[in-house]
Amino acid sequence: MGALEEKKTHANFGGVQGMYAHDSKECGVRMDVNVYVPPTVPETGAPVLYFLSGLTCTPENFTTKAGAQAAAAEAGIILVMPDTSPRGDEVPDEEGWDFGKGAGFYVDATQAPWSTNYRMFSYITEELPALVDARFPTNGMRSVFGHSMGGHGALVIGLRQPERWRSISALSPICAPSQCPWGHKAFSKYLGEDRAAWARYDATELVKQGAHPAPIRIDQGKADPFYQDAQLLPERFEAAAKDAGQALTLGMHESYDHSYYFIATFAADHVAHHAQYLR
Amino acid sequence: MGALEEKKTHANFGGVQGMYAHDSKECGVRMDVNVYVPPTVPETGAPVLYFLSGLTCTPENFTTKAGAQAAAAEAGIILVMPDTSPRGDEVPDEEGWDFGKGAGFYVDATQAPWSTNYRMFSYITEELPALVDARFPTNGMRSVFGHSMGGHGALVIGLRQPERWRSISALSPICAPSQCPWGHKAFSKYLGEDRAAWARYDATELVKQGAHPAPIRIDQGKADPFYQDAQLLPERFEAAAKDAGQALTLGMHESYDHSYYFIATFAADHVAHHAQYLR
Repeated sequence: MGALEEKKTHANFGGVQGMYAHDSKECGVRMDVNVYVPPTVPETGAPVLYFLSGLTCTPENFTTKAGAQAAAAEAGIILVMPDTSPRGDEVPDEEGWDFGKGAGFYVDATQAPWSTNYRMFSYITEELPALVDARFPTNGMRSVFGHSMGGHGALVIGLRQPERWRSISALSPICAPSQCPWGHKAFSKYLGEDRAAWARYDATELVKQGAHPAPIRIDQGKADPFYQDAQLLPERFEAAAKDAGQALTLGMHESYDHSYYFIATFAADHVAHHAQYLR
Repeated sequence: MGALEEKKTHANFGGVQGMYAHDSKECGVRMDVNVYVPPTVPETGAPVLYFLSGLTCTPENFTTKAGAQAAAAEAGIILVMPDTSPRGDEVPDEEGWDFGKGAGFYVDATQAPWSTNYRMFSYITEELPALVDARFPTNGMRSVFGHSMGGHGALVIGLRQPERWRSISALSPICAPSQCPWGHKAFSKYLGEDRAAWARYDATELVKQGAHPAPIRIDQGKADPFYQDAQLLPERFEAAAKDAGQALTLGMHESYDHSYYFIATFAADHVAHHAQYLR
């Protein structure tokens, strides 16, 4: 376990886009994380918005392709962009891109051989915020959003810890992993066959246990092949949210797919959504 | 030679980001080009802004990393993002990243073996605009900008053809290629040792022959290692422009480097610059 070490920085929209790495206690390996610091930070510090990426992504995808730094600069928000799994030769993996490296699903795995390194829930919710708060001028307020698998992560984390995350949003999220092929595969391997363990990482199940105080924003492209293949299931989350009294804006967008062209289009809107709750 | 064939498209900022390819008469090979069409195009058509990329780039770099589509959508401008050289096994190349493939320098090469395929000046100024105008709802107005080697290309093309390009701008351009190592290497191989031939592809020499009617905008990061290594030489262009009566805004920016983090920061400003002259 160690503090964030700077690998490089770039001036960007008046602020600084930095690339960092650290030895992770939770994951047992070195982890990369990118952080954007806006041009102006008050003496009392800036709020922090975590972006959780989707399957196959590293911290680089959102950092280079989403253009969210422009909106974060304007809103005075620090952006934190973690990796999607532990990495390295010593980390167990499998063939395929929807499980193992690049596909941590933001759970603490309980099953061998995954449980040693795949502890992304504790990493994102405990270890990384402590490191970020120690290194950057934060003010203790934080929110979370993400895309696809990372949208699932954001919904789960925010719904489980409403006192620690002021607002939640997601782009093309996996909304009901217990009911889709990606989630079935990942949860049965990381968590075993106990469905009660799955429910603790399933936004559609979690929202039934209690609403988050802030309205949730979700955007979904109607031309997204993974939406069409029933991997994402936003309507099931919407129905559960309605029953639970969870305020939700679900935007369904003609023509948009699952790519970073969709993310880039709505990234500034999502940053502005969180800015309302991070004041 | 053939029309643009669509490879794929993505909805993006209300418009469409497309990837195309075609058989090029000038380059003798198949060429990739990306085009962004904004959400609203009048019946009379939209103006076109060409972005020329730097060394090692393909059409993908600017398309995915610059975020310029947001500004183009707002301004109602079509963006065209060509490749930086001919590609393919049959195209001559050399070791190294600053000459040959990915490094066409926007010249029509006159020396063997380069002169067969490396005809990027005619490709960008003649062949590609004809294909773009045939395929997309253009209104005949066009401007050009670029980064680094592509900034050199934009300055050269606009200054040589002021009647065909309404405005010119550049980010971190190679401003005086006859006076820097990159230009020496490329021009001696592509054009031979005749310095008169070099001058026709050197913005600092060209501006002495006549100013462009629109003010030129150039932005340069002071922490750019290629600026510090005297590859870019914006001050020499500035001095020549002043003598020639060329209106120029040269913005020198503390802390910014040569990367896409710099390009992304100023991309919207450059699109807005051109929008003034494309009305």
